[in-house]
Amino acid sequence: MTSTELFSQIKAKKSFLCVGLDTDIQKIPHFLMDTTDPIFAFNKEIIDATHDLSVAYKPNLAFYESLGVNGWNSLEKTVNYIRFNYPDIFIIADAKRGDIGNTSSLYARAFFDTMDFDAVTVAPYMGEDSVKPFLTYVDRWVILLALTSNKGADDFQYMSEGGERLFERVLKRSAQWGNQENMMYVVGATRAEMLADIRKIIPNHFLLVPGVGAQGGSLAEVAQNGMNSQCGLLVNSSRQIIYASSGEDFAVKAREATIEVRDEMAILLEKYL
Amino acid sequence: MTSTELFSQIKAKKSFLCVGLDTDIQKIPHFLMDTTDPIFAFNKEIIDATHDLSVAYKPNLAFYESLGVNGWNSLEKTVNYIRFNYPDIFIIADAKRGDIGNTSSLYARAFFDTMDFDAVTVAPYMGEDSVKPFLTYVDRWVILLALTSNKGADDFQYMSEGGERLFERVLKRSAQWGNQENMMYVVGATRAEMLADIRKIIPNHFLLVPGVGAQGGSLAEVAQNGMNSQCGLLVNSSRQIIYASSGEDFAVKAREATIEVRDEMAILLEKYL
Repeated sequence: MTSTELFSQIKAKKSFLCVGLDTDIQKIPHFLMDTTDPIFAFNKEIIDATHDLSVAYKPNLAFYESLGVNGWNSLEKTVNYIRFNYPDIFIIADAKRGDIGNTSSLYARAFFDTMDFDAVTVAPYMGEDSVKPFLTYVDRWVILLALTSNKGADDFQYMSEGGERLFERVLKRSAQWGNQENMMYVVGATRAEMLADIRKIIPNHFLLVPGVGAQGGSLAEVAQNGMNSQCGLLVNSSRQIIYASSGEDFAVKAREATIEVRDEMAILLEKYL
Repeated sequence: MTSTELFSQIKAKKSFLCVGLDTDIQKIPHFLMDTTDPIFAFNKEIIDATHDLSVAYKPNLAFYESLGVNGWNSLEKTVNYIRFNYPDIFIIADAKRGDIGNTSSLYARAFFDTMDFDAVTVAPYMGEDSVKPFLTYVDRWVILLALTSNKGADDFQYMSEGGERLFERVLKRSAQWGNQENMMYVVGATRAEMLADIRKIIPNHFLLVPGVGAQGGSLAEVAQNGMNSQCGLLVNSSRQIIYASSGEDFAVKAREATIEVRDEMAILLEKYL
């Protein structure tokens, strides 16, 4: 998917929402445990209930890997289900991968060939040759960690040399490895005050913004500081939506929670675009 | 496994070799393609041929993930095979994971509960709360990236603030999160000249050292600069061993290549311990 196609979806749906499929076998409604694949059954209901209100889904790989082969199977079914039924949706593997070049090539194969993801999150610690193999695919995206939403972001990401902080160096250097059609960046909503600084370095790239909702970030602040003329934002919400209810009405309640976020997004798009 | 148990194995086998199971479906001997699970068939032969000469195996997750559910299945079978037949072997998931706390907890569950790995490699970019969930397990290990063997290591890992480089900050801070019984560090053999500096910061921790062989690092230099009184080194070799031959004799040739490395290690252990 190109950035123009993504922006078209955002305008059509009045939404820049990414729904995080952090599907935890210990948190999904109990009655689903009777199905042959409870994780997929849960995802399918959530997707059917929210696909017209969101532009992206983001399975978090850890949740699937924790279930071994079965979890990996549920993941593949989920990706295939979205691709077949809702082909305009942008699908992100939240995998935080990154390794030496020949290994990153195989991660790229895993997410872009074996599975049909549009994008994969990548950690920048190992530098250029760990990122570039993902950029050889047409219309596929690396979403590189820049400034994350967690407390641990303070440990290393603000380290500074000659007035340039680590996350800024990540933005500047990596912007040379790819371009606005194959790279996005993770910037946590809990760091909304930093978004204006970040926009000075990468005015046009899309940003994937986690941390709204359960982690405490503000959607209005993110939009105010981070939105550009093509929106340029995918804001993720996971727990607030997918666990809106633990009963048989979980999909209905997930839709209601999604409508609430989407309505706020529609107002923000109207205001800043 | 404790560090004392690992050191006992090193002394008994006169080897600090970790064999990297970077098993590529496109590189394994063609005749194995007739078996039901060529990846596992290959690993089984390699393991049977080298287990008495090496103290650790390190499946590289990318190679398995690139094959989807089937690859994940081959991985689980490989880990179970080692654990059942050679219980004294240390098994490392080379996964380079790392995410916010609740997600890292699930990665820990994947590698330490669902699968029976002793250790998992973790990237430090997201800081303390991305690492700590792995440290709550008894006798399991985080192997944190410090200074990697690839060219891209130069992009960020040498960034310096107040005379402290990023990889040094990673070593110093993370040494407070865990201890010598649950943390090791990745230091590339191609950076052997840095090992003496690194040993000043963490004299007693084990180091996992990739980059000997195909990547060009020298085993003698690694031992000279990095060995401590408990050895403190696991040196990885992958391609040089597992692809020593592409014929029906691949396991025999892998053993010969392993003996060559082990003999050099035996001499180095004699020299420095």
